[in-house]
Amino acid sequence: MRIDILTLFPEMFQGPFSESIIKRAQEKGTVELVCHNIRDYSTNKHKKVDDYAFSGGAGMVMQIEPIARLIEKLKEEREYDEIIYVTPDGQTLNQGISNKLSLKGNIMILCGHYKGVDQRVRDHYITMELSIGDYVLTGGELAAAVIADSVIRLIPGVISDETSALTDSFQDNLLAPPVYTRPADYNGWKVPDILLSGDNKKIEAWKEEQAYKRTKERRPDLLK
Amino acid sequence: MRIDILTLFPEMFQGPFSESIIKRAQEKGTVELVCHNIRDYSTNKHKKVDDYAFSGGAGMVMQIEPIARLIEKLKEEREYDEIIYVTPDGQTLNQGISNKLSLKGNIMILCGHYKGVDQRVRDHYITMELSIGDYVLTGGELAAAVIADSVIRLIPGVISDETSALTDSFQDNLLAPPVYTRPADYNGWKVPDILLSGDNKKIEAWKEEQAYKRTKERRPDLLK
Repeated sequence: MRIDILTLFPEMFQGPFSESIIKRAQEKGTVELVCHNIRDYSTNKHKKVDDYAFSGGAGMVMQIEPIARLIEKLKEEREYDEIIYVTPDGQTLNQGISNKLSLKGNIMILCGHYKGVDQRVRDHYITMELSIGDYVLTGGELAAAVIADSVIRLIPGVISDETSALTDSFQDNLLAPPVYTRPADYNGWKVPDILLSGDNKKIEAWKEEQAYKRTKERRPDLLK
Repeated sequence: MRIDILTLFPEMFQGPFSESIIKRAQEKGTVELVCHNIRDYSTNKHKKVDDYAFSGGAGMVMQIEPIARLIEKLKEEREYDEIIYVTPDGQTLNQGISNKLSLKGNIMILCGHYKGVDQRVRDHYITMELSIGDYVLTGGELAAAVIADSVIRLIPGVISDETSALTDSFQDNLLAPPVYTRPADYNGWKVPDILLSGDNKKIEAWKEEQAYKRTKERRPDLLK
């Protein structure tokens, strides 16, 4: 899988894409992550990429031209399954969308900044608009990193033990049950006896019951 | 405001916290962001911080001891308004929660990794559990960065023009209207005539109408 990220702040991805599982996925060649600086595609001599909104009001708008030039260059090089724009008014990301995206070949993710991109970019180039939740961020960069992370970890072979992802929250519409590890007693705070019993059947039943209980208490909407 | 981040991967925050508005907020002294490596608080000679789950199954669990030592050290140094754990089964972040958090003095954000932290950490130290959405990430780091970003930009003075944040999506339960900037005609794709009319009253009415229309089409749940 190849993910192209179109941004004004490519340095923001250095930390998130250089650690842990995402780093290993790139080293293995399972995923190729390429960040492009939109500013490099400005034809303005000051490398300007934004301007005041026609409608007036506070905040700058990212201009269509540099973005259009970058997208068209990439589309000439290969076919893209989706050109995603991250925006608070997009469809809200969920585990089902991440699952579907993890099966794609090439995707682009365009990060807005300031007041967002000129609407004509969205009308003419974007195939999918995604939000990561009902809150506003400084820019689309962290949201793009979140989408990439949630998708990449689902590609088979990225997480060492596949059952590890399959037992995560949301995969079966249940939240994950509580987890405990050594020591069994920490300052008098003890692990539930049943987990130390060695009775695997009872432990599995307990985990299922706990997952259901937690979902019912915290997210009854998932059980509908 | 001070935000302490407790993580096994402090390097992941270098990009997100070194750019744009978050960088400037730190330079101005409006916010202090401090990342702590939980591994530094392991008493194990191999600096081990995780172990197998008592309940069996795939995936490692973060042990209570190093986390407890770090949290207790920080609590001795100052008072915290919230100790947040980022987890897919927490309360879902929204703009209202970000607004409230932006008024706090000191908060801690604990990032889980692997299968999460030992439940006893959550039972005895955590005051608030937050999720950024219904999807699973490699770890809590990106989610913590998202929470910090959404909160920091709401602190007065962080965004240069305050009205810029006040007209964002979600602040008034409406999505933002489409935005356009120069050129008025790009390859035959034109900006709506009304925005070039110079009639501010009509433009304001158009923006409100568009915001309402977009919300009704995309997120009717926000209008209820």
